[in-house]
Amino acid sequence: MARYPATIEQLITAFMALPGVGRKTAERYVVYLLKQPPEVVGQLVATLTSAQQAVRLCERCFNFSNGKLCDICQSSQRDQTTVCVVSDGTAVAALEQAAGYHGTYHILGGTINQLEGIGPDQLHIKELVERVKQQAVTEVILGTNPDMTGEATALYVIDALKDSGVLVTRLARGLSAGSDIEYADDITLSSALENRKAV
Amino acid sequence: MARYPATIEQLITAFMALPGVGRKTAERYVVYLLKQPPEVVGQLVATLTSAQQAVRLCERCFNFSNGKLCDICQSSQRDQTTVCVVSDGTAVAALEQAAGYHGTYHILGGTINQLEGIGPDQLHIKELVERVKQQAVTEVILGTNPDMTGEATALYVIDALKDSGVLVTRLARGLSAGSDIEYADDITLSSALENRKAV
Repeated sequence: MARYPATIEQLITAFMALPGVGRKTAERYVVYLLKQPPEVVGQLVATLTSAQQAVRLCERCFNFSNGKLCDICQSSQRDQTTVCVVSDGTAVAALEQAAGYHGTYHILGGTINQLEGIGPDQLHIKELVERVKQQAVTEVILGTNPDMTGEATALYVIDALKDSGVLVTRLARGLSAGSDIEYADDITLSSALENRKAV
Repeated sequence: MARYPATIEQLITAFMALPGVGRKTAERYVVYLLKQPPEVVGQLVATLTSAQQAVRLCERCFNFSNGKLCDICQSSQRDQTTVCVVSDGTAVAALEQAAGYHGTYHILGGTINQLEGIGPDQLHIKELVERVKQQAVTEVILGTNPDMTGEATALYVIDALKDSGVLVTRLARGLSAGSDIEYADDITLSSALENRKAV
């Protein structure tokens, strides 16, 4: 006997496609949704449909956009000569919220990960090299995550840009705000020590 | 400047309606979904729509069902005189998977929770009392969660059934399989001691 009616099982499977969602979490989402008034599910269906139809990728930076170019690439308030390279749109959202950055972005669309079969050709690295050549880009800031695949991707980008003569920098490494030195890992501590600043 | 285009912001808000999903998790889901081929979102939209249309509640036990009565309430293999009372459908799924139970269920549709404004009248307790009277129910097993609202609900159900003369039992309390006595809480340990069995 199936544990849930077939339509519910299918919905659970569909939710399990989301990142980090296993069977139990998917069940919780589905049971919750089916207990809600029809408007809640209607709202989810409507926004999913319209987001999929309306949202496209900016032709220059590959961030989400409503038109050919995204708001940031079109803005005269932003320094179009500085490009921060990140793996995906969530990093842009985090950097924008922190504020203080007035340049533009370039979204690679992931990181190099041989285990998952993602090579440099699936990422927007060619387009970055082309963009640096075509536009008057003076600085490329590497903003990939400081983890294994992020570092590998950063190294690849450095290599791809070495003939272009553009200044390549990367986000500073050090102690996170509110963290505890006692629990900081070795690599973070060495970075913090190496990059110490006069006060 | 909005952090994402408006359609994406709306989709993020829609996902934040799910239980336990905050802004960051919703962002991850949305960015992931919009990176997938259109079929993935299409599948989610289609299953959401069909589940909402096809799924109804069993008229007897209030579990999810495709027809008037659910598979369990219709089955001649199940002991229709034993009813396990649970708060929602996820508990049924867990008990069915564990197997070994051959009776039926009664889904209350939540637990009594004054803070969230859920009183006994919003739960299917009246229907349980009626069901026990009308059908030849001989045993009601309390299967609400062993937490504060679950216990309060169980007490209310016990009280509601006290005139019906039906045998009311509850699921055993004790140490979980694979757990560690050192980390068991006091209430669990007292229950385990009190309910000890001869070997």
